[in-house]
Amino acid sequence: MLAVKDLKQITVVGMGLLGGSISLAVLRSFARARVVGYAHRASTRARARQLAMATEVTGSLASSVAGADLVILATPICTFEAIFDEIADVLPSGCIVTDVGSTKVLPHRWAASTLPKTVHYVGSHPIAGSEQRGIEFARDDLFERAICVLTTTGKSDRRAVQTLNDFWSQLGCTLESMTPAEHDRVFANVSHLPHVTAAALTNAGKDDDLKFCGRGFIDTSRIASGPPNIWADVLLTNARNVTRGIDKVIGELTRLRKAIDKADRKRIEALLAKAGAKRAALIEYKIKNKEILS
Amino acid sequence: MLAVKDLKQITVVGMGLLGGSISLAVLRSFARARVVGYAHRASTRARARQLAMATEVTGSLASSVAGADLVILATPICTFEAIFDEIADVLPSGCIVTDVGSTKVLPHRWAASTLPKTVHYVGSHPIAGSEQRGIEFARDDLFERAICVLTTTGKSDRRAVQTLNDFWSQLGCTLESMTPAEHDRVFANVSHLPHVTAAALTNAGKDDDLKFCGRGFIDTSRIASGPPNIWADVLLTNARNVTRGIDKVIGELTRLRKAIDKADRKRIEALLAKAGAKRAALIEYKIKNKEILS
Repeated sequence: MLAVKDLKQITVVGMGLLGGSISLAVLRSFARARVVGYAHRASTRARARQLAMATEVTGSLASSVAGADLVILATPICTFEAIFDEIADVLPSGCIVTDVGSTKVLPHRWAASTLPKTVHYVGSHPIAGSEQRGIEFARDDLFERAICVLTTTGKSDRRAVQTLNDFWSQLGCTLESMTPAEHDRVFANVSHLPHVTAAALTNAGKDDDLKFCGRGFIDTSRIASGPPNIWADVLLTNARNVTRGIDKVIGELTRLRKAIDKADRKRIEALLAKAGAKRAALIEYKIKNKEILS
Repeated sequence: MLAVKDLKQITVVGMGLLGGSISLAVLRSFARARVVGYAHRASTRARARQLAMATEVTGSLASSVAGADLVILATPICTFEAIFDEIADVLPSGCIVTDVGSTKVLPHRWAASTLPKTVHYVGSHPIAGSEQRGIEFARDDLFERAICVLTTTGKSDRRAVQTLNDFWSQLGCTLESMTPAEHDRVFANVSHLPHVTAAALTNAGKDDDLKFCGRGFIDTSRIASGPPNIWADVLLTNARNVTRGIDKVIGELTRLRKAIDKADRKRIEALLAKAGAKRAALIEYKIKNKEILS
């Protein structure tokens, strides 16, 4: 098992916003490592080469992972199983395999059933990105001050976890660790549910009305502009937690609705004040944790 | 009826974020007008004087409006009726009265039943502000590039509407005109509903989970930090439109929930793509309209 300083080849599968940013960040932070980037589309490969985003860019998945010490999947979640299957026989023994998908229970399951025992899978979820997509938005500082959650199980190789921990840390991340199940429950609430809510709110509005909106609606709906296919993968691979979360949001909306309908000022103010206090505590935590500026 | 250039005294009732900003903007843009600021609290008056935010600052509502050519209410909506009542006998004949509240049907009703026929009420709703509150956040450029909706009825004095139109325009606003009922329907959807949704989403999350959130949740929940008492007024004075809007959002959430539950990828992608396209059209409109930068 290699320590992070000994990683010689890092392969990034998928050169979109996240994959491209990982590639750029590795080029900047790991002077001695080669980065091999795999992209499915010829146009993405051409752009990646033009922008010198990796040491080598290839359209062959098998050759991209041959010789890799670390393989990072940065494609939509529902492609992982087929990719694991395709690379299983080519992965060097001792190789660390990870991914940057937003759900983790299924990727762990797919890895366990498909990858050979000679490689070490650990899940990664860097909390970075935006509603934008594609290689054009890739940035070498995307991971600075971001949280990165590693997902591990009782079977995870401790040295592989340590190496991956050091890897993300070197890209600027603060590391956290969770089980895959814990991860998917937490991120249903803090990420997948806000996405669903932003989409529902946007779809509930009429186009002619929306043009009168202010900064509030623009911010509240921002993430509704995320790529539908990537988000469909997220919601489908975390269905149970997300539908539970939707039920909770509907419950909270119904509480507010009832209070408004009954003209119960005290209750309305209490519900709004509760939300305000929760958010104030959150922002204070994020500032203290240096994830956001004041 | 005075033209905007002839306004000699403008009285701002309430010196919070909006009232303070109006006061500062008038001092900057209307060289020949006096601004009289009324504030209920001694501490706000002291701060307003210290920051030279008005030509004169007073704690007497009656004396603040005596001699006014234009009176602007910038207090919570549910105080309007009592204020109208208190100033009714003191308002100079021909005076224009407006407010900057976020709902308009009830203010128009209160004005019609309480203010004398010798003054002219027109509603104003500048779409400016933030989740912040209080005089400390007042800025003289708060209204630049903001939309300001004037609400008028068949009985509105046309010259008063024109003067008020010119007034907001001089502060940097783009003017729109609506009936009070139309205004309240539209702003239930683009402003009051996002507020309720942000609060519901925040209340649905556990504190321990929230600390793992990224930029998405932070933006989606931002407006949940608005002042509860001011927002309770908004929701209570626009109850019917807001509860209808909540029903629509619950309907959209239920659609997404069903599609996720049935693992209907096509349907999930279609709903997310619809929201993405609506928001893209909105952002394009806002950029074209120069309300936001690219």
